[in-house]
Amino acid sequence: MAPILLNCMGNDHNDYIKQLVQVKNPNLDTMEEDILYHFGLGTKTHNLPEMFGDIKFACVGGSANRMKAFAQFIHKELELPGNPEEIIDICEGTDRYCMYKVGPVLSISHGMGVPSISIMMHELIKLLHHAQCRDVVLLRLGTSGGVGLAPGTVVVTDKAVDYSFRAQFEQVVLGKVITRSTELDEGVANELLQCSSELQNFPTVIGNTMCTHDFYEGQGRLDGALCSFSHEDKLEYLRKAYDAGVRNIEMESTVFAAMCRVCGLKAAVVCVALLNRFDGDQITSTHDVLVEYQQRPQVLVCHFIKKRLGLIV
Amino acid sequence: MAPILLNCMGNDHNDYIKQLVQVKNPNLDTMEEDILYHFGLGTKTHNLPEMFGDIKFACVGGSANRMKAFAQFIHKELELPGNPEEIIDICEGTDRYCMYKVGPVLSISHGMGVPSISIMMHELIKLLHHAQCRDVVLLRLGTSGGVGLAPGTVVVTDKAVDYSFRAQFEQVVLGKVITRSTELDEGVANELLQCSSELQNFPTVIGNTMCTHDFYEGQGRLDGALCSFSHEDKLEYLRKAYDAGVRNIEMESTVFAAMCRVCGLKAAVVCVALLNRFDGDQITSTHDVLVEYQQRPQVLVCHFIKKRLGLIV
Repeated sequence: MAPILLNCMGNDHNDYIKQLVQVKNPNLDTMEEDILYHFGLGTKTHNLPEMFGDIKFACVGGSANRMKAFAQFIHKELELPGNPEEIIDICEGTDRYCMYKVGPVLSISHGMGVPSISIMMHELIKLLHHAQCRDVVLLRLGTSGGVGLAPGTVVVTDKAVDYSFRAQFEQVVLGKVITRSTELDEGVANELLQCSSELQNFPTVIGNTMCTHDFYEGQGRLDGALCSFSHEDKLEYLRKAYDAGVRNIEMESTVFAAMCRVCGLKAAVVCVALLNRFDGDQITSTHDVLVEYQQRPQVLVCHFIKKRLGLIV
Repeated sequence: MAPILLNCMGNDHNDYIKQLVQVKNPNLDTMEEDILYHFGLGTKTHNLPEMFGDIKFACVGGSANRMKAFAQFIHKELELPGNPEEIIDICEGTDRYCMYKVGPVLSISHGMGVPSISIMMHELIKLLHHAQCRDVVLLRLGTSGGVGLAPGTVVVTDKAVDYSFRAQFEQVVLGKVITRSTELDEGVANELLQCSSELQNFPTVIGNTMCTHDFYEGQGRLDGALCSFSHEDKLEYLRKAYDAGVRNIEMESTVFAAMCRVCGLKAAVVCVALLNRFDGDQITSTHDVLVEYQQRPQVLVCHFIKKRLGLIV
């Protein structure tokens, strides 16, 4: 029986190691100290395993206010002790990002655009690695422009695609362009869709999400400071996007998906569409309507987290 | 004399119009309302000419705290009435950017990376246009990694270059890549260098600034969550950059320069180097040292503004 036992132990150990959040950088283990500069945290100045070792869900979104509101919402929904209003920004030493921890949930802002979320993702993955976190799911909660969808519809991303509707992310490494896959976890996406059908309070679809590097010319908006194309050109581009399965447009999904995939992390992107881009470019809904729309990805992800934690059967 | 007079009037009128901040989008004039969504401002809800018509210097930088500190510093230096501590964030309705106005100076944060500053620049140029501002200089004040420079050195950008050291910016418009020049105003750069020689309190150089789309792999850092290259590969890339005239690396200059150029706006980029990338990747200076470094571009730009306003002869 000994070899079998050893074999089992070996597998268990492998699974245990496998679930640990992995970085893809051999240099990190040889560094005496790792300063996560844009978080204002470090391996020498902070006990990262103690602070973050129990994290199971890392939720990220562009706006600092929104991610604070999400943390407070999760705090209430998980019925955690303490006053959700007194929640502390772990990154308060810097104004680049903000970060809140509520039980097993981390809520972090990442600003707007691929470069901004990319810095945060490097430091988040290092943080989860240093903290020896296991079996973490990463979720991006965002806002977006809808493509052929009614405002308020929530899109769970199937594939994150670039401006040519390809499921890839181009990363420059030392002056050379390399291409990474942006495939996300199908299982998590389906779980999220299932959550939405249980909630039954807003429309949710699975579709491709186009990630652009700007909000105006790259998304075909006619109302930027620069615009050299016609209304018809814009509609033609949006139609092509729709035909390629694109249901919403935002500015962070490709690099988020690509980095998670390289590190073997399960991840999903959940964005609400604030408008239907076939109907216009400007976001004209009232403040209250927009606030309610922005809560929808939070409600959906909260339901997902509660199910995963066994708080909802 | 009549034709001559008319001719003169025509020229004056042309000059007057020429100095007005121009957008490059014919659609804007036909829009009933323009909502500057990420500023929380609009042409119907705010009297933009009254609020911003006297702006002559639009200063932008990544960090919200830093741009608030800059506004307070300018407030004191220009000896404006009121308490600089009570300065109000004009964009307080949103957390995407913050904006302060002190006399003829606007101080705005833009977050990190090309997409983030690009959204801000579209809305800033539209704002200056709607407000009928004239003869505005745009200045980006930032932090950067130095290439062969002592930490604390201030770099006034000659050319903003991409990862291949080309003075161009690639913009995607409706799925097609177009290329824009990133040349900056030589006169303003030389004026800034002259200001530094008058101040004599920190080293300043004119050099090329490389703009990348991430902080880790794109800048050849060995300490990201992902790293597939060696220390030697990194040094070789930095050496090539140095040989191409690059003296610092940041993440916003190309699109800033390109958009200013398309709109005929005079612009400069002034960034302090927080470290010498030949010596390392992590920013290890103490908080106090970093704070003093970050004030250097502010001190330089303040001197420039005071000279332009005739407050220093």
